[in-house]
Amino acid sequence: MKKKVTVLGCGMVGSAIAADLSTRYQVHVYDHAPAVLQKLEAKYSVETTIADLSVEQLLQDAIRDCDLVINAVPGYMGYKTLERIIEAGRNVVDISFFEQDPFLLDELAMENGVIAIVDCGIAPGMSNIILGHHASKMDVGSFTCYVGGLPKVRTLPWQYKAPFSPIDVLEEYTRPARIVQDSVVIAKPALSEPELIDFPELGTLEAFNTDGLRTLIKTMDVPDMLEKTMRYPGHIELMRILRESGFFKKEEVRVNNNWISPIDMTAKLLFDAWKLEPGEIDYTIMRIILEGKGKDDGTTITYDLLDQMDPKTGFSSMSRTTGYTCTAAATLVLEEKFSRVGICPPEYLGKQHFELIMQYLSARNVCFKKTTS
Amino acid sequence: MKKKVTVLGCGMVGSAIAADLSTRYQVHVYDHAPAVLQKLEAKYSVETTIADLSVEQLLQDAIRDCDLVINAVPGYMGYKTLERIIEAGRNVVDISFFEQDPFLLDELAMENGVIAIVDCGIAPGMSNIILGHHASKMDVGSFTCYVGGLPKVRTLPWQYKAPFSPIDVLEEYTRPARIVQDSVVIAKPALSEPELIDFPELGTLEAFNTDGLRTLIKTMDVPDMLEKTMRYPGHIELMRILRESGFFKKEEVRVNNNWISPIDMTAKLLFDAWKLEPGEIDYTIMRIILEGKGKDDGTTITYDLLDQMDPKTGFSSMSRTTGYTCTAAATLVLEEKFSRVGICPPEYLGKQHFELIMQYLSARNVCFKKTTS
Repeated sequence: MKKKVTVLGCGMVGSAIAADLSTRYQVHVYDHAPAVLQKLEAKYSVETTIADLSVEQLLQDAIRDCDLVINAVPGYMGYKTLERIIEAGRNVVDISFFEQDPFLLDELAMENGVIAIVDCGIAPGMSNIILGHHASKMDVGSFTCYVGGLPKVRTLPWQYKAPFSPIDVLEEYTRPARIVQDSVVIAKPALSEPELIDFPELGTLEAFNTDGLRTLIKTMDVPDMLEKTMRYPGHIELMRILRESGFFKKEEVRVNNNWISPIDMTAKLLFDAWKLEPGEIDYTIMRIILEGKGKDDGTTITYDLLDQMDPKTGFSSMSRTTGYTCTAAATLVLEEKFSRVGICPPEYLGKQHFELIMQYLSARNVCFKKTTS
Repeated sequence: MKKKVTVLGCGMVGSAIAADLSTRYQVHVYDHAPAVLQKLEAKYSVETTIADLSVEQLLQDAIRDCDLVINAVPGYMGYKTLERIIEAGRNVVDISFFEQDPFLLDELAMENGVIAIVDCGIAPGMSNIILGHHASKMDVGSFTCYVGGLPKVRTLPWQYKAPFSPIDVLEEYTRPARIVQDSVVIAKPALSEPELIDFPELGTLEAFNTDGLRTLIKTMDVPDMLEKTMRYPGHIELMRILRESGFFKKEEVRVNNNWISPIDMTAKLLFDAWKLEPGEIDYTIMRIILEGKGKDDGTTITYDLLDQMDPKTGFSSMSRTTGYTCTAAATLVLEEKFSRVGICPPEYLGKQHFELIMQYLSARNVCFKKTTS
């Protein structure tokens, strides 16, 4: 009898996850939008249910009977959903990337004997797995992660398409970015410290501080850690302009007779402008640089990834790289190879299961290139 | 006994108008905002009344007893207000720059024996007066008006401060611009055909098509006519980006549970970003080029204006140049030097009263430099 997996959320990433898991498990997908469920059901062996998961009872129904839950809802409803899953005693892999500290749920997960893997996408996710792996073998002095999801074709003005919910992209442009410098946590403004980096395949990209270290700040004893997100040059200047003029404000302002959050209006408008077209090629580009210290002083390990949309399945690159990291972790739990209860960030997986995860991704043509010098 | 003037609207321009007229006439100013009225009253001999002029009865009360009305309300309520003034049989000078064709009210004005001077600011306004004057003396082949209201200090990202209501500025960025080419009226998109022009005092400015010809399209038989608005280079590119992403849309979109026009939200946010600070210096820059044809082939007449905020009164340059053109016209009506009933665009004034108006402006230090070649 196949194990049962519940996938909450059938956005671009949730769809890729459900499709991948459906080849080996009994998968049931829940979303409020009928169209995305129908599209998935037409091609893959999955059950689907239309449900607004912000409604308590519908969420409870969805997670009642399964061996594992994938939490792929939008960030703003991620934490509460994860809490309910843990309360229900279900093992879970979470890629909702909510703002709150997941360790607030650690005690609850341990009490309930739940394995709760969080932040398990490409970055955070694979970046944590790579650092977790190497930090168990060498003395890591610095960790830098450059990552970006980009459309192949650059169209002015934005030169950008959102590979996940635009409101979550705008969150990256507003939330202060925590970095670690000389073992001290420092908050930098969002969109700060732009830096131009040349890549052989994509040319010059512009990287800026984002709040992507998250659990690593607590779990890793590495003196210098930094995540930067990359866009085509020019994009972030426009984002700074919108932000500085108030278009990203969450506080409601009065417009005629309505009170409204500017960021909600902005997300609504950019949702149209930033929509990946069907069949449009997107890239995931990532470069991770680990530098040794102490006994490993002088060692530099670099991981490079350039993935793109799969024309056979139509799954965007961001769905592939995020989704398959998630399904690799899900497989480890379902096959009982990973059984640590409590909140488990991906760096915990990296310590023991790095090779398996890399093989899992490689089998799906998500291939990292490693360089050591 | 002094003649009575009612000024509807006490924005930056309305204030300058009221102050100027108060030295010679009995002036009563109406606005919904107590603060601007108090400020004016403290310095000038004017009566004030707090009134929402969109309320029919309050408007009727305001215009009941006076010799002339100045219509200085925002553009969106300009036409209806002008109609009421004409219905009430009051002479009027209008600087509300509403979107509708003022000649729709010509018959009504003539029936009621009303002198209704419209569009009587700097441009439209002085631009029409200058063209009206020269067209009565020479064979004009082309008329080009470059005009801009700019802050002295350029601050990124906008390098702009709005010298009148931001919603009326955004109107200039969205309304198609009608130009005349070879005697044919052509509508060009707003913000189109950017052109860089060097000025000795302000350096390079960027000009784009705006819908400023208005009545000239009907009244003048000039084969080529064009108005372009000027900004510091870079501004209009940002405006195009906002416009193309939907931030200037009037059609309501649904945001959470509210229906809202994006342009209203945008105007609200830019109102803060574009506010002239107290004491901040602004410029009005204008260049008008008239080229002769037929018997006047080879003649080029150029008018240049560079005006700036008056530190003594605190009136912005745009208030001065717009307001004093308006008060010059008002004076002509009140002194019974101009008595043509019906809708009178400023080009009609230019035919007879060009010198008087130029002297009036010059006495207030708004000085045009004329070059003939």
